[in-house]
Amino acid sequence: MKKLRVAVFGGSGYAGGELLRLLHLHPHLDVTVATSEKSAGLPVSSVWPHLTAYSKLVFDPMNAVALAERADLFFLALPHKAAQDTAAELIGLGKRVIDLSADFRLRNPDTYESWYQTPHTKRELLSEAVYGLPERYRSQIKGARLIANPGCYPTSAILGLMPALEAGLVSLPEGIVIDSKSGVSGAGRSLQQGFLFSEVNDGFKAYGLAVHRHTPEIEQELSAIAESEIVVEFAPHLVPMDRGILTTIYAPLAKAVTLEDVHEIYRNRYADEPFMTVLPVGQYPVTKNVRGSNHCHIGLQVNKRTARLIIVSVIDNLVKGAAGQAVHNMNIMMGFDETTAIAGMGVFP
Amino acid sequence: MKKLRVAVFGGSGYAGGELLRLLHLHPHLDVTVATSEKSAGLPVSSVWPHLTAYSKLVFDPMNAVALAERADLFFLALPHKAAQDTAAELIGLGKRVIDLSADFRLRNPDTYESWYQTPHTKRELLSEAVYGLPERYRSQIKGARLIANPGCYPTSAILGLMPALEAGLVSLPEGIVIDSKSGVSGAGRSLQQGFLFSEVNDGFKAYGLAVHRHTPEIEQELSAIAESEIVVEFAPHLVPMDRGILTTIYAPLAKAVTLEDVHEIYRNRYADEPFMTVLPVGQYPVTKNVRGSNHCHIGLQVNKRTARLIIVSVIDNLVKGAAGQAVHNMNIMMGFDETTAIAGMGVFP
Amino acid sequence: MKKLRVAVFGGSGYAGGELLRLLHLHPHLDVTVATSEKSAGLPVSSVWPHLTAYSKLVFDPMNAVALAERADLFFLALPHKAAQDTAAELIGLGKRVIDLSADFRLRNPDTYESWYQTPHTKRELLSEAVYGLPERYRSQIKGARLIANPGCYPTSAILGLMPALEAGLVSLPEGIVIDSKSGVSGAGRSLQQGFLFSEVNDGFKAYGLAVHRHTPEIEQELSAIAESEIVVEFAPHLVPMDRGILTTIYAPLAKAVTLEDVHEIYRNRYADEPFMTVLPVGQYPVTKNVRGSNHCHIGLQVNKRTARLIIVSVIDNLVKGAAGQAVHNMNIMMGFDETTAIAGMGVFP
Amino acid sequence: MKKLRVAVFGGSGYAGGELLRLLHLHPHLDVTVATSEKSAGLPVSSVWPHLTAYSKLVFDPMNAVALAERADLFFLALPHKAAQDTAAELIGLGKRVIDLSADFRLRNPDTYESWYQTPHTKRELLSEAVYGLPERYRSQIKGARLIANPGCYPTSAILGLMPALEAGLVSLPEGIVIDSKSGVSGAGRSLQQGFLFSEVNDGFKAYGLAVHRHTPEIEQELSAIAESEIVVEFAPHLVPMDRGILTTIYAPLAKAVTLEDVHEIYRNRYADEPFMTVLPVGQYPVTKNVRGSNHCHIGLQVNKRTARLIIVSVIDNLVKGAAGQAVHNMNIMMGFDETTAIAGMGVFP
Repeated sequence: MKKLRVAVFGGSGYAGGELLRLLHLHPHLDVTVATSEKSAGLPVSSVWPHLTAYSKLVFDPMNAVALAERADLFFLALPHKAAQDTAAELIGLGKRVIDLSADFRLRNPDTYESWYQTPHTKRELLSEAVYGLPERYRSQIKGARLIANPGCYPTSAILGLMPALEAGLVSLPEGIVIDSKSGVSGAGRSLQQGFLFSEVNDGFKAYGLAVHRHTPEIEQELSAIAESEIVVEFAPHLVPMDRGILTTIYAPLAKAVTLEDVHEIYRNRYADEPFMTVLPVGQYPVTKNVRGSNHCHIGLQVNKRTARLIIVSVIDNLVKGAAGQAVHNMNIMMGFDETTAIAGMGVFP
Repeated sequence: MKKLRVAVFGGSGYAGGELLRLLHLHPHLDVTVATSEKSAGLPVSSVWPHLTAYSKLVFDPMNAVALAERADLFFLALPHKAAQDTAAELIGLGKRVIDLSADFRLRNPDTYESWYQTPHTKRELLSEAVYGLPERYRSQIKGARLIANPGCYPTSAILGLMPALEAGLVSLPEGIVIDSKSGVSGAGRSLQQGFLFSEVNDGFKAYGLAVHRHTPEIEQELSAIAESEIVVEFAPHLVPMDRGILTTIYAPLAKAVTLEDVHEIYRNRYADEPFMTVLPVGQYPVTKNVRGSNHCHIGLQVNKRTARLIIVSVIDNLVKGAAGQAVHNMNIMMGFDETTAIAGMGVFP
Repeated sequence: MKKLRVAVFGGSGYAGGELLRLLHLHPHLDVTVATSEKSAGLPVSSVWPHLTAYSKLVFDPMNAVALAERADLFFLALPHKAAQDTAAELIGLGKRVIDLSADFRLRNPDTYESWYQTPHTKRELLSEAVYGLPERYRSQIKGARLIANPGCYPTSAILGLMPALEAGLVSLPEGIVIDSKSGVSGAGRSLQQGFLFSEVNDGFKAYGLAVHRHTPEIEQELSAIAESEIVVEFAPHLVPMDRGILTTIYAPLAKAVTLEDVHEIYRNRYADEPFMTVLPVGQYPVTKNVRGSNHCHIGLQVNKRTARLIIVSVIDNLVKGAAGQAVHNMNIMMGFDETTAIAGMGVFP
Repeated sequence: MKKLRVAVFGGSGYAGGELLRLLHLHPHLDVTVATSEKSAGLPVSSVWPHLTAYSKLVFDPMNAVALAERADLFFLALPHKAAQDTAAELIGLGKRVIDLSADFRLRNPDTYESWYQTPHTKRELLSEAVYGLPERYRSQIKGARLIANPGCYPTSAILGLMPALEAGLVSLPEGIVIDSKSGVSGAGRSLQQGFLFSEVNDGFKAYGLAVHRHTPEIEQELSAIAESEIVVEFAPHLVPMDRGILTTIYAPLAKAVTLEDVHEIYRNRYADEPFMTVLPVGQYPVTKNVRGSNHCHIGLQVNKRTARLIIVSVIDNLVKGAAGQAVHNMNIMMGFDETTAIAGMGVFP
């Protein structure tokens, strides 16, 4: 079988590096292109000493048109806004694109412009873009040309709430509170004082309360699932760890249910999903158990005193929350076995 | 001035060690007794190599009656239940007691028995015990013989909510959600697999959802402040750091207020408190800024979309959440300057 | 092709867990047996929540004879001393054994008894056991029945020094100093106060100076390489991280050489090795770049002022220093491609 | 008593912030000036949220002459080279200066120019500058106008070796190896990719082998102590922790001695030193035990097999290795009790 030729645009950020790490394990493709503005001309292995296998691949500067002919499928690990034009150019040239930025996730471009404070200039592509959450949109992903790979926080929140919303367990008018905690790699590799080791280590903080840009993405997908408009309280926090998101979700119950009932609903919903695990009753998930892997673990509790369902979900933000989910989407698009290159379990301890 | 003679019962746990560290900085007292069951007979400095100043103080085995005459004021850093009898014996002998356990915090002994699953055998002392939160009970602390030193999570939650509740900002029937994140020292020094470095480091988890024992303590105090019964959703989490609690509180607003209004209410409420800082609008607290100190920092946000007040408070669980607050209580009881021995600011970075 | 049936004895320790994680990625075998004394009767996935794929494999109690017929090749991740009898029984039954303990590493049983303070009761197996360092003993490993899988510190030290000793660069009578730094998982999963998170985090310490049991193993192999008796100063330290060993080696130079010369010697020596990378001149290795992988990175420096060669090597103690090297040995023994199941690169960041 | 007026030049770096933290605890002085180029005009407490007590002190831009009249004693926490002129100006105006940079540490300006690659333009001040290591130069410090506060690595190395060199225990022509491990705050607060949390956390690395600038400082002081020229192998490493240096020193013994002999020599040498602790035989120091404090702990071992003395010393790089030692020097200069403001013991855990 002729191998798929794959490009990684934005290969010197953490998500791009993780894509390269995972794609190396894939038997049905070759990474033929990787780009980096600041490291153009350097071998990938000199920018990423852990990626020793890429000693002969050299970073190109970004130029979608010039590079288009050298690959069949393109992963865009670019900043939001920068991805819009690049995706459009590649789609125009008949290429398949998996975009890890936020540019094609929000169906309503006005919502995008309001939260991201920048114009959306490729509105015509929004209707064709598929939100790349396999557990919900698998069939659309199969035939897609353009995948909007979900954000890390939204992935954890949506996977956590989906079974409960589908089953009508949650009382909608009252509010859902989503308290998320992320490892530091989610902030990317850019130089900011707040992400220096000495600032972060042995400490914990909140940020972006009430204003984080993943809020509308979460609300869009939860509303679609519930078939009713949902407004959420979303609050992110920074954990002194490399990878991992743990999201604690507080959802008012629409009716009296037992923990066992809820547990069965979740188990059934995710029974055929290769990366979803619903933990036994009484057990809560730990980010470290999914570190480096594409798995999502979910734990559940019902608080009778407060009539709330409490859901805890964990993912690795760089894998299931970014590069791994992107590879999963590619596997579905191309008809590969879904777990190819992402079958590994968590690196614990 | 004759120095106060002070005893630390339970000196080989983290809270006991922290008491010894702080008391060494106090010019008006001598630590004359420290107890430890497993380390009895050993010098304090051999059990705690950081406490070099205590090379001549030797741990005694616990015996309240025998040790009573060697000190005037007793800090009990014992497990809950064990503190009940010891406190009663010492009070009976005319001593002053600051109890860091949960044994005298809940005014209703039935609530204690229900959440702690153990009988309360000294109910007669409950009415005299003062809940040792200086920012609320300063005047009662002055004359007290028995202080129930607050729990670490409750300290962070109550200090965070008190000004808002006093000002009637919070809509009570609807629920308050308290999502707390603690460093590992809160678990104490006992040997459990779940607290091994390799299990905790570079990971994050939730625990005790809906069932944590600090819940009734939080509810008791919040209800007293609000003069109305409050039931809360309290969820603790474990952060891979030594010290620190960050509590994020989601409180439905009773009326439309601006962030500036709320900010002024908080600033006014804590204007004269030596250990309370309300951060400027737009700034959120970081546990590391209070590491090793008795300070509490509070940040605020109003989410107009959800009509919620979001409060973030941070403390060092071993200082403001245990030993430092205990020393603060002692300073008030004895008429010392309130900041004596606990004037230090956070050890950052 | 009929799959190899593989057993992991001692599957609830960190090395055993890592074996199970890696073996799951191996297409030519099935893990048919895993043992654990304390977790016998429990599914592997309930003891190791990260190993979700093992939900149907149940831990057996250890019984070599009873379990022998259920597998063809046995990994022993047992404490030293316990492995002796088990290995002998399995070898006696015609099985192949890869022993991760120290029991068959030292060719001289008196040396074993002196450093490990316990008798060696299977001396007859020592002559047949092959020290499982593929970079040195690949041809012997091919036909071996019993592999003594190297210790973690020795792996890093020997791989670091081998090219220099083979090339006669090191002045032998004068001393080599080996200063090693290890992550905490090297201490295993047993409950000791010194390995609690709160004791280890944000701190650093030395231990076992002059007396660590890996010393004779290092000396045995270095002496064999140099064909001359070598006594080393070996000093281990504990780093607040999960995985990884960095070993800094100070070796007096036997003659004047340039860094470029040394670099070429190292590059040539390891040119065909799939897991060895000699970093470019001026670059030093970082443990995090090999985290979770079977790779070893080496950096070099020549100090002209002191006439010393300085070598820095890094490995993941649980992979190249234990489970990964064991799988590598199995691959060689069985004629599988050497990188099967261990082709993954480091999980960074 | 009229309070001393103290200035901190370079108050927005980690050493400057630590000076401000410690000076706040000092009853005999007022901090009247703090400078910061990038934060000029801002209150100290807005740049350092942990330093709540400094809400009214505003950072000035650096201008030695203009600020001179507002203080009596000046701490310079400036980069090397920048400190030269500033110190000279202040000395010229009759002020006392404690310089935390490297500018006045090396008595031979040619050595300075060779290792720091920059001219030394205030050579005339070198003869008057006192190397501010109280344990060796206490009497000269008393009368000094200009203190060259020692580097962090040199402090740990010199304190570790001094008693052994003074007692003639070390064989000098053969080499001493000094393997140091530092927390990340030693790198300062500047923005470099290598010090981002995600790059450092859960990893370990070496750097600056054979070329680190603290080498000549260590050699100068050891040679002076030994009264014989000493060349050392000095190798620094980066530990994923905030604060702390642990230095492991390998010194060839000049004669056969027992560990007990060595221990007594060290205990006697440091018997009257308020910040020096020699740990009991068999115990090694842990950086965490001195975290946040001005203490230095030393552990010892004699390896009979290799005829080497192994010394392990730990300090907090920001306190004993910088700000705390500077305050100690000031206390000696001004005749204050030596432990004023720095009496606190380590913040453990």
